[in-house]
Amino acid sequence: MSIVVSVLKETQPQENRVAIDPEVTKKLVKNNMTVLVEKGAGASAYYSDASYEQAGAKVVNRQTALDDGNVIAVINNPGDETLAKLKAGQVILGLLNSLIEPAKMTALAEKNVSALSFELLPRTISRAQSMDVLSSQSSVAGYKAALVASDLYPKYFPMMITAAGTVKPAKVLVLGTGVAGLQAIGTAKRLGAVVSGYDVRAASKGEVESLGATFLTSSVANGSGSGGYARELTAEEQQAQQAELVGFIAQNDVIITTAQVPGHKPPLLVPQSSVDSAKPGTVFIDLAASNLGGNVASSKPDETITTDNQVMVVGAGNLASQLPNSASQLFSKNVQAVINALVVEDEIKIDPTDDVFKGLVATTGGEIINARLRKALKLPELPEPASEPTEGGR
Amino acid sequence: MSIVVSVLKETQPQENRVAIDPEVTKKLVKNNMTVLVEKGAGASAYYSDASYEQAGAKVVNRQTALDDGNVIAVINNPGDETLAKLKAGQVILGLLNSLIEPAKMTALAEKNVSALSFELLPRTISRAQSMDVLSSQSSVAGYKAALVASDLYPKYFPMMITAAGTVKPAKVLVLGTGVAGLQAIGTAKRLGAVVSGYDVRAASKGEVESLGATFLTSSVANGSGSGGYARELTAEEQQAQQAELVGFIAQNDVIITTAQVPGHKPPLLVPQSSVDSAKPGTVFIDLAASNLGGNVASSKPDETITTDNQVMVVGAGNLASQLPNSASQLFSKNVQAVINALVVEDEIKIDPTDDVFKGLVATTGGEIINARLRKALKLPELPEPASEPTEGGR
Repeated sequence: MSIVVSVLKETQPQENRVAIDPEVTKKLVKNNMTVLVEKGAGASAYYSDASYEQAGAKVVNRQTALDDGNVIAVINNPGDETLAKLKAGQVILGLLNSLIEPAKMTALAEKNVSALSFELLPRTISRAQSMDVLSSQSSVAGYKAALVASDLYPKYFPMMITAAGTVKPAKVLVLGTGVAGLQAIGTAKRLGAVVSGYDVRAASKGEVESLGATFLTSSVANGSGSGGYARELTAEEQQAQQAELVGFIAQNDVIITTAQVPGHKPPLLVPQSSVDSAKPGTVFIDLAASNLGGNVASSKPDETITTDNQVMVVGAGNLASQLPNSASQLFSKNVQAVINALVVEDEIKIDPTDDVFKGLVATTGGEIINARLRKALKLPELPEPASEPTEGGR
Repeated sequence: MSIVVSVLKETQPQENRVAIDPEVTKKLVKNNMTVLVEKGAGASAYYSDASYEQAGAKVVNRQTALDDGNVIAVINNPGDETLAKLKAGQVILGLLNSLIEPAKMTALAEKNVSALSFELLPRTISRAQSMDVLSSQSSVAGYKAALVASDLYPKYFPMMITAAGTVKPAKVLVLGTGVAGLQAIGTAKRLGAVVSGYDVRAASKGEVESLGATFLTSSVANGSGSGGYARELTAEEQQAQQAELVGFIAQNDVIITTAQVPGHKPPLLVPQSSVDSAKPGTVFIDLAASNLGGNVASSKPDETITTDNQVMVVGAGNLASQLPNSASQLFSKNVQAVINALVVEDEIKIDPTDDVFKGLVATTGGEIINARLRKALKLPELPEPASEPTEGGR
């Protein structure tokens, strides 16, 4: 019998993406899998039910997708009601938010459901790069951030030379030059803006400059952390950083902020005073906007605020969802790479000794196996696991 | 005494622009003019009253601006109520819509108000290019059209090469490659799309290709008309054109239409069948959308329609207003060029023998002097005018 992969329709209000697109559906079917797609799952990403059927999927209701799937693919954690319906041996795969809500993983472990949570992926292993949802979706978000900014900004991005005179180009500052920041820089450069990038990780200078942008060197001690992320700065360093940023911000027309430290509240990079004193027409795009706060004082997730001084503050916590078709396409390819590693000769094999799965898998075989999660849950460290793979359902 | 230039606040609902910005204000004041700005005139274009005051203007109420101005600068025809308040000797300058509503110009002539209407500007005279509002605003609209399209389109414009695979670039088709069309082509190219341009004027091939886009050659007879515009096609030619366009449209993801024939209903380039059969996610931007109809069947001015097959149709008749700051800056430079030609040694001189003014001036000295307007109003042709300039108010 073939492995059944189910694709759920996302339920979060601002979510337009879908975890598997028709193109990947076709490839899974070709590899002897059955694909069940919840009715309407791709609609907001511009994939019709008919396009899934053409790719060889069956369109079903949610209950059937949940009942019959060996692997359940989602973008976001589908919530308690759905998780409660999963049964022993099933595998769920998506951005399950495991680090923020580890207790949900414990509940799945108790039922012997396997959970693969993309935010746990060990991103520095090269074999994991084709599975790296955080990277693919950050790239989409960075592109979209520059587009949203250029559409809101009341002036041209490029320099314009006309019969009546010359118009100056926009000055764009990108704070945090990881995947999203670099993509925002690249897109703003494409549009002809004068772009600079700032990061506490001195190593990103070369990347920023290779895109034709100026790197603003931080006077704060080098803030590189593990896994390619910035580390959390000390209170003193944060203060020094804010002071230098205030000067940089005031010289720019568009400020795109992308600074996130995994598992922590995003650092405040743009204080209220910088928003209040910005020129009319200035646009702030805060990719770290969340209910915990963001990089820009007063940003609200999924809202665009226009202040009394005509400054726009966009709380853009889920921008990838606003380019839903391409974002889903890339997410699907990442999901496909995981499924390819997961399904061996029509069987699901999760090898907990495999370097990638050791990170990606929150729980399997009734046990929380991810070390970071165990720490978050205050569980003792696991002994080095036996090399026998556990078996998923079927 | 110095000439007084008044800047009115626009009253049309979707209008964010202002006819004179603080920068041009400064230059007029330096040239010994007085500038009166109606309170809030620049607000929607991100120019505060304070910024005008800093530039040397006085901020006044509408009545004072109308009473005391020798030259009244506007973007759009301000409507009957305002026109009724103008007095003999005053000059009004803007996009007065004189060809569509010529009777309004007759009413001004009867009161001996001088009206300079930008749509009458003889655009092929090189001295007039610095005054060419249609050109500067079309350029803004073309840029904005590409941005709006890229923001609505649910996929990437550029090709993206990622760890998980490659995403194809968007295919963008621009119909009508005048100023707006060329700017849309240039901006879509900047964003990395694969762009083609179509025009019945074979002469535009070189311009399109110089931007790195493909020129789609029309099989319809060359449709070049006067003044650089396309001529109106015959019914037979229109049918042949639509047939060839249907094929081009179906191969593209984003279609931007910019075809206008002055004084005529815009030609229908995209039939309803093309909208109905387009792929989900296709974006149509109709820059000719108007109450008379547009280039795209079913487009509505100032509305974005999403069809049942997830196709977006943007009726974008006044896109320049959506980049209000830069659009106003360029419009202001055009206005400044007219005022520079109009004011000689602190006096307003309108020379009806001057090639530029012969076109631009709808009425002065109590007479409709523009030949096209006289024809529209069924007035006899004027004898070649004496070379004595008429004097504007003071």
